[in-house]
Amino acid sequence: MKLHYAPHTCALASHIVLEEVGADYEINRIDFSIAEENSPEYLAMNPKGRVPLLETAQGYLTETPAILVYLAQCYPQANLAPLDDAFAFAELQSFNSYLCSTVHVAHAHRLRGNRWADDPGAIIAMQEKVPASVLAGFLYVEDNYLRGPWVMGDQYSIADPYLFTLAQWLEADGVDLQPLPRVIDHRSRMLQRETVQTAISAELSPSA
Amino acid sequence: MKLHYAPHTCALASHIVLEEVGADYEINRIDFSIAEENSPEYLAMNPKGRVPLLETAQGYLTETPAILVYLAQCYPQANLAPLDDAFAFAELQSFNSYLCSTVHVAHAHRLRGNRWADDPGAIIAMQEKVPASVLAGFLYVEDNYLRGPWVMGDQYSIADPYLFTLAQWLEADGVDLQPLPRVIDHRSRMLQRETVQTAISAELSPSA
Repeated sequence: MKLHYAPHTCALASHIVLEEVGADYEINRIDFSIAEENSPEYLAMNPKGRVPLLETAQGYLTETPAILVYLAQCYPQANLAPLDDAFAFAELQSFNSYLCSTVHVAHAHRLRGNRWADDPGAIIAMQEKVPASVLAGFLYVEDNYLRGPWVMGDQYSIADPYLFTLAQWLEADGVDLQPLPRVIDHRSRMLQRETVQTAISAELSPSA
Repeated sequence: MKLHYAPHTCALASHIVLEEVGADYEINRIDFSIAEENSPEYLAMNPKGRVPLLETAQGYLTETPAILVYLAQCYPQANLAPLDDAFAFAELQSFNSYLCSTVHVAHAHRLRGNRWADDPGAIIAMQEKVPASVLAGFLYVEDNYLRGPWVMGDQYSIADPYLFTLAQWLEADGVDLQPLPRVIDHRSRMLQRETVQTAISAELSPSA
């Protein structure tokens, strides 16, 4: 498998899970600084012009929640999702869906406001609300989803790298960390995992 | 099971799937006109203050993509998801994730702009872009996801009620339908299904 990614994006979640399951994979950096995501070669693989893109023997996959479950299903021995318990699996999916549709979307209003408005003043107004809207999303995670020590409780799962990845953006989004002690503790423990360190190092390596 | 819903929301997708699988269920209308979604009783069940909420024997579930897969797994005989094919399942999940994180989010900027900006001018600027941003999301569906006759091809799945539900909002969002012939054809064929008619009628019934 090959993961097409860019540093500091949500592709990190898929990258960490590739490490966790012990997959035989490579990574390919898409250089946003030269708009490589909009090159004909990349758009031929992924017309969305976004990352992550997972290239598999069966075809291409996009959207983080789909990729994470795919990896958990391909490597069941890694035990990263409750594949035989429909309700527990739905709870896991609910969390991942909340991250992609609410938390990540709130964050995106800082740098991608032009998706939703053209007026420069409106784009600034969106940026001004990011600290509050991202905090609201993480507060919901803090109070309602994050069971501890991992998102789903004692069992580490694909939800953990995804939460960690989005929590990496808190400082840049100007979010007050004080009301989020459990999210920050989770982030610290994730950073101690060798798989996480390996993925981050590889993404930031000049040769990647 | 009990589905807590409001008319004209994405809860319709879960409602249609409850019909399709032949579940023993009831529905409970949450009256947005009196902010029932923020009542202490409702928030005790769903602190998000949103719909849909699916009440099951094992607990509460939120987020449409999670609920749809849960129903497909609980009623495998309905054959609404490729549960034994990780790649095909990932393609289905990718579609549902795109709907919730991109298409529904674009739509939400028409009536829920206050989630992402406080300035009244910015909220108007967001509304002005909705016809274009929603169209962009549906054009991607039209050109890249919708295989025909159903989203995943010959096999009807949970993706179909979800696409249908969001396509119900196109006119109100001011979207030009002309570039979307396949989406509109899909919507028309969905409306012919008895399950869809039953769900819509029930939601609009005064006694629901």
